Amino acid sequence: MASNSFGNIFCMTTWGESHGKAIGVVIDGCPAGLEISEEEINVELARRAPGKNKFVTSRSEKDRAEIYSGIFEGKTTGAPISIIIFNHDADSSKYESIKNHLRPGHANFTYLEKYGLFDYRGGGRASARETACRVAAGAVAKKLLKHFNIQFAAWLSSVSDVEACVSEQKQELTSLKKLIDASPIFCPNAEITTRIIQKIEEAKEAGDSLGGTVAFLATGLPFGLGDPIYQKLEANLSKAMMSLPASKAFEIGEGFNASCMMGSAHNDPFIPRDGPLVKRATNHAGGVLGGISTGMPLYGRVAFKPTSSIKLPQESLDLEGKPVVFRLPEGSRHDPCVAIRAVPVVEAMMALVLADALLMNRGARL
Amino acid sequence: MASNSFGNIFCMTTWGESHGKAIGVVIDGCPAGLEISEEEINVELARRAPGKNKFVTSRSEKDRAEIYSGIFEGKTTGAPISIIIFNHDADSSKYESIKNHLRPGHANFTYLEKYGLFDYRGGGRASARETACRVAAGAVAKKLLKHFNIQFAAWLSSVSDVEACVSEQKQELTSLKKLIDASPIFCPNAEITTRIIQKIEEAKEAGDSLGGTVAFLATGLPFGLGDPIYQKLEANLSKAMMSLPASKAFEIGEGFNASCMMGSAHNDPFIPRDGPLVKRATNHAGGVLGGISTGMPLYGRVAFKPTSSIKLPQESLDLEGKPVVFRLPEGSRHDPCVAIRAVPVVEAMMALVLADALLMNRGARL
Amino acid sequence: MASNSFGNIFCMTTWGESHGKAIGVVIDGCPAGLEISEEEINVELARRAPGKNKFVTSRSEKDRAEIYSGIFEGKTTGAPISIIIFNHDADSSKYESIKNHLRPGHANFTYLEKYGLFDYRGGGRASARETACRVAAGAVAKKLLKHFNIQFAAWLSSVSDVEACVSEQKQELTSLKKLIDASPIFCPNAEITTRIIQKIEEAKEAGDSLGGTVAFLATGLPFGLGDPIYQKLEANLSKAMMSLPASKAFEIGEGFNASCMMGSAHNDPFIPRDGPLVKRATNHAGGVLGGISTGMPLYGRVAFKPTSSIKLPQESLDLEGKPVVFRLPEGSRHDPCVAIRAVPVVEAMMALVLADALLMNRGARL
Amino acid sequence: MASNSFGNIFCMTTWGESHGKAIGVVIDGCPAGLEISEEEINVELARRAPGKNKFVTSRSEKDRAEIYSGIFEGKTTGAPISIIIFNHDADSSKYESIKNHLRPGHANFTYLEKYGLFDYRGGGRASARETACRVAAGAVAKKLLKHFNIQFAAWLSSVSDVEACVSEQKQELTSLKKLIDASPIFCPNAEITTRIIQKIEEAKEAGDSLGGTVAFLATGLPFGLGDPIYQKLEANLSKAMMSLPASKAFEIGEGFNASCMMGSAHNDPFIPRDGPLVKRATNHAGGVLGGISTGMPLYGRVAFKPTSSIKLPQESLDLEGKPVVFRLPEGSRHDPCVAIRAVPVVEAMMALVLADALLMNRGARL
Repeated sequence: MASNSFGNIFCMTTWGESHGKAIGVVIDGCPAGLEISEEEINVELARRAPGKNKFVTSRSEKDRAEIYSGIFEGKTTGAPISIIIFNHDADSSKYESIKNHLRPGHANFTYLEKYGLFDYRGGGRASARETACRVAAGAVAKKLLKHFNIQFAAWLSSVSDVEACVSEQKQELTSLKKLIDASPIFCPNAEITTRIIQKIEEAKEAGDSLGGTVAFLATGLPFGLGDPIYQKLEANLSKAMMSLPASKAFEIGEGFNASCMMGSAHNDPFIPRDGPLVKRATNHAGGVLGGISTGMPLYGRVAFKPTSSIKLPQESLDLEGKPVVFRLPEGSRHDPCVAIRAVPVVEAMMALVLADALLMNRGARL
Repeated sequence: MASNSFGNIFCMTTWGESHGKAIGVVIDGCPAGLEISEEEINVELARRAPGKNKFVTSRSEKDRAEIYSGIFEGKTTGAPISIIIFNHDADSSKYESIKNHLRPGHANFTYLEKYGLFDYRGGGRASARETACRVAAGAVAKKLLKHFNIQFAAWLSSVSDVEACVSEQKQELTSLKKLIDASPIFCPNAEITTRIIQKIEEAKEAGDSLGGTVAFLATGLPFGLGDPIYQKLEANLSKAMMSLPASKAFEIGEGFNASCMMGSAHNDPFIPRDGPLVKRATNHAGGVLGGISTGMPLYGRVAFKPTSSIKLPQESLDLEGKPVVFRLPEGSRHDPCVAIRAVPVVEAMMALVLADALLMNRGARL
Repeated sequence: MASNSFGNIFCMTTWGESHGKAIGVVIDGCPAGLEISEEEINVELARRAPGKNKFVTSRSEKDRAEIYSGIFEGKTTGAPISIIIFNHDADSSKYESIKNHLRPGHANFTYLEKYGLFDYRGGGRASARETACRVAAGAVAKKLLKHFNIQFAAWLSSVSDVEACVSEQKQELTSLKKLIDASPIFCPNAEITTRIIQKIEEAKEAGDSLGGTVAFLATGLPFGLGDPIYQKLEANLSKAMMSLPASKAFEIGEGFNASCMMGSAHNDPFIPRDGPLVKRATNHAGGVLGGISTGMPLYGRVAFKPTSSIKLPQESLDLEGKPVVFRLPEGSRHDPCVAIRAVPVVEAMMALVLADALLMNRGARL
Repeated sequence: MASNSFGNIFCMTTWGESHGKAIGVVIDGCPAGLEISEEEINVELARRAPGKNKFVTSRSEKDRAEIYSGIFEGKTTGAPISIIIFNHDADSSKYESIKNHLRPGHANFTYLEKYGLFDYRGGGRASARETACRVAAGAVAKKLLKHFNIQFAAWLSSVSDVEACVSEQKQELTSLKKLIDASPIFCPNAEITTRIIQKIEEAKEAGDSLGGTVAFLATGLPFGLGDPIYQKLEANLSKAMMSLPASKAFEIGEGFNASCMMGSAHNDPFIPRDGPLVKRATNHAGGVLGGISTGMPLYGRVAFKPTSSIKLPQESLDLEGKPVVFRLPEGSRHDPCVAIRAVPVVEAMMALVLADALLMNRGARL
């Protein structure tokens, strides 16, 4: 029930606030014998780092993950892996001016109501900074999955009404990943990248923010990942994604589009082949049936709302209920579009769900 | 980790196959002292019963829930509540003809791969019949929530491209519920009801099936339900909905639409009022911020794919990998649109998530 | 957190009261492909059945377990296994005379305080009848362990101050089991059996009851069962045993006696041999080190208090706090020594813990 | 299932090895609004610190807990509380000489078999150092319980055959605690303290070690803590204590002694009084009935084996299975009697179990 833990067998527990000493994650249940280094974790962290480009917040966090336990002579030992990322740039004095103001679209109001405390500084646990811990844990999960030849990617599939279409590439993961990494905003289409960047610059100029969607894809999955009824692969994926800050929707396979299709079109026909009974002519299902992986690629999308912290003045209230005009303090840093930085986080969450499903599946048969 | 259990404190465990003796649910963690009768549970069950009308499967299940434990003198005792629904109409002989055929779009292939067993009869655990247990448990959850003045509804919001728009009614739950119950397909708009029914009849005639979406709404929620980080209200709701058979997408508040909005439009401004600090001018967030209820109505949608079992012949394989034309046996019964019967199930899942969140919230503060 | 569930991967949920329609257990997480029949479960149930002999309560329950789900063509399917035992002999009218009396040494007072309800009939969930469900689930666990060549036994090791010494036999399980089954009270020593029976008859005559201890032993365990830190094998065993009605103490290996030994005597020296590195000259540790199985036999003991329900009149209070003399109703049935009937239950709990540990261990290494 | 986590609502996760950078604990589920300081945690840690006196290992750890998250302006915020204790004195070079030797009575053999790794240095996760994290988390739990007027103590009740009898003092906790703190070995009887110290010095001189027992006691408990069936208060306490390094037995109330009593003597009679229906003439049950607190003091005992690491040479094997004489490296530090340092740890585990039970009980009734 621990609300800061995620996963059944491969389980992470995250802690830390954006304005505290550090943030961290404890990974429990990773099998012994997996090679993993701090460097591999930091490569992943660097992808979501603020300051990477001008489309994400310019906060210079110098994020560096340090492994504190669970590794001996370069390999996991079966003991919990503790990873800590120290906070370097957490000056909270600038928040003085909004000390008593409710922030529209922000969780500080709900935290106040729930816990009776008002942390006026950064978002506390609700800060997107917490997702750095997910990326660190995801790096370990990815290394485990790599051992089983499972590969994955996530990318920016739209910002506002500008969409990147990548359906044809869905099975050529290596080339897709190159396209993603070539884009400063994780968008595998160069032309769309340019259009989105322009859109974001306009929004930033206007003191406003934009929403977007992130797509995810995994290939090489064995059959049988996911457990009916309440640990279905898509159910756990969905929970993983909807636990991200600012996420508002999730879909697997055709998603909402499936509600507009007919059965004869949506059913993926099996096709005969030489090898095992796996291929299907299409993959509308997105790689799962009845909550269990089919062996076809797993894919879906997550929608993110526009960043709630915007420069434009907004109507709000103070803690006594009196109307105020809410203005972000000078110099406060916020991504104009959180969906960009969400890309490596979505990828990490997918890896965490798959690593757990893989270990859970070990007990499925005699 | 039990994959047939759902919930943390208010927790249900379901069991049973569509072609076995019975199906059932054990509810653990319901507080003592709640009045609940078999009748109240059966009223809910009747809503999702097959044979209710011609748009859902004509299987006559005479479903009747019996309470086997946990109630003494009409009230819950704090002990587990065991509810059993006997199966009456589970003739599996008709499935002989497809004994060795993979069913397109169906979980029997993935179950075979995962468990090494092929249950050619009905869907086993993957059968929609399992959802009757969720409705029974949901009836208890609803009774608990009623005690705290929380109300909710779910309805058919679209089938294929025909949509019912109900945004204006979102806060008048009582009148909305009347409209829903007046429709044979749980659609609160009479004209749309007629159009959808026509569409379903055409699909049925053609031996095909249709997808659809279900909307859910709860009002009267206190502040503070939902726990950051991984037990966010929307994360648990999402998992609940994505654990349903045939569901492919979930959204809360504006959902995917939020990804096309700007922050200045999406943020819900606080408005001053006489009472507690709760009202907002809009509710794009759908009742949650940072995973915690805001006091505004909770709403969202779930998308269901078209029923995979259709009368039209389909390409498939037999268990040896040889091509076959798959034909459903004569007389097998399947809803042409599963989204209809999903309506009371979505409502039940929402109640289960909220009941659990309510009890979890009791430990939030000193 | 479900308080009526036990186990992580191999997990059971029990329900039902002694005076309701039935009691039952749902087993989740049993691997698919295990052969198991109702008959095998009923053989185990018969061992703990009341009325087996005159030293346990004469209530004639005609207990018979029925499997309601999770088995197809004689094998487990991976779906939850629901087992139900109907109650046949649950006349609660005889309890009228003590309707308002607190029973000394009984849980009806604590249930009243916790839940605000007073179930004056049998013990409700606190009744030893609940343990029949553990035995039924244990039968499935035992079958699973048999597949891995793990064997076990439990026996009555003492009643009051009469002890049965069986240390020499600890590795010859087959002969030990024959001795246990030859005794009407599960005591592997014929002479001690006679002395205990005499002691029990005297206590029964006097309207009083006796305490006792039960020993458990498992052989054939692989290395590696049990997970540090909080899922240690002995920690989970201990919880399993201390969850039994009337149990008051647990020990593994030398137990309390270890506190009187010196390190040089307690440490079990390794001895060289031809095969794998497993044997030790002694086994004071009882088969575990650091919470993990050593490959040596697992053994320990559980202590049970004397039955609280005795015929002798006792000082007590009524629900209003006035002094009363508490007398059990005529014809109420209670074992004079609960430790006897606890023997198959202790064996079942050991099997459940080991089955779970076995499945959990599958994820320990890459 | 996370094996390094303990608790349901009030839940801790520990990490770190004795020879790594640091050890730590993350506490999840502590209610918001509790005042707690680093100082209060360090006061508890100081009690179990090595080097406190000559009867515990002389390793100078300068243990100091630092709070990294979850506290804002001196109070808990509802967010996870991360506490880190850096390791200062973890020179592992001295272990070179036993790099390939199995240590008798030590977990390095079972860890090797389970995880395929041999950490020849200190005990890794099996080290008693891990218990410092439990004490740190226990300090927070104790502060929470203090808020509800629950008090507790633990003390050294025996070493080898020398026992401290404290039954009369069981309800006067304040004076008992003074006696405990006056003793360098947490033994509330001055004469017994002297005798035990002498015994330990003799064992140390001989290069050997001693076992012992620790008693625990809590007063001021409300009715209703503990949940039937598998979250019984004594079951969770038992698991907590049996998860400690070197513990081999647990008892609640009369414990094993109860197995030698008759029902008429063991049942605690209710006695009439002016206030609520709570008092009993005796407390053989140890404060629980049916797994639920009775309002009477909670008490029991835990047995610890003699330290496995002793100076005397011992027969063993090397990693290739050849006989060796095992000798601890010069200068390695080990308590001659682990039971002494276990005293504050037992107290911490009791507090953690009670804090969790208290929060779980909030959902018991409407």
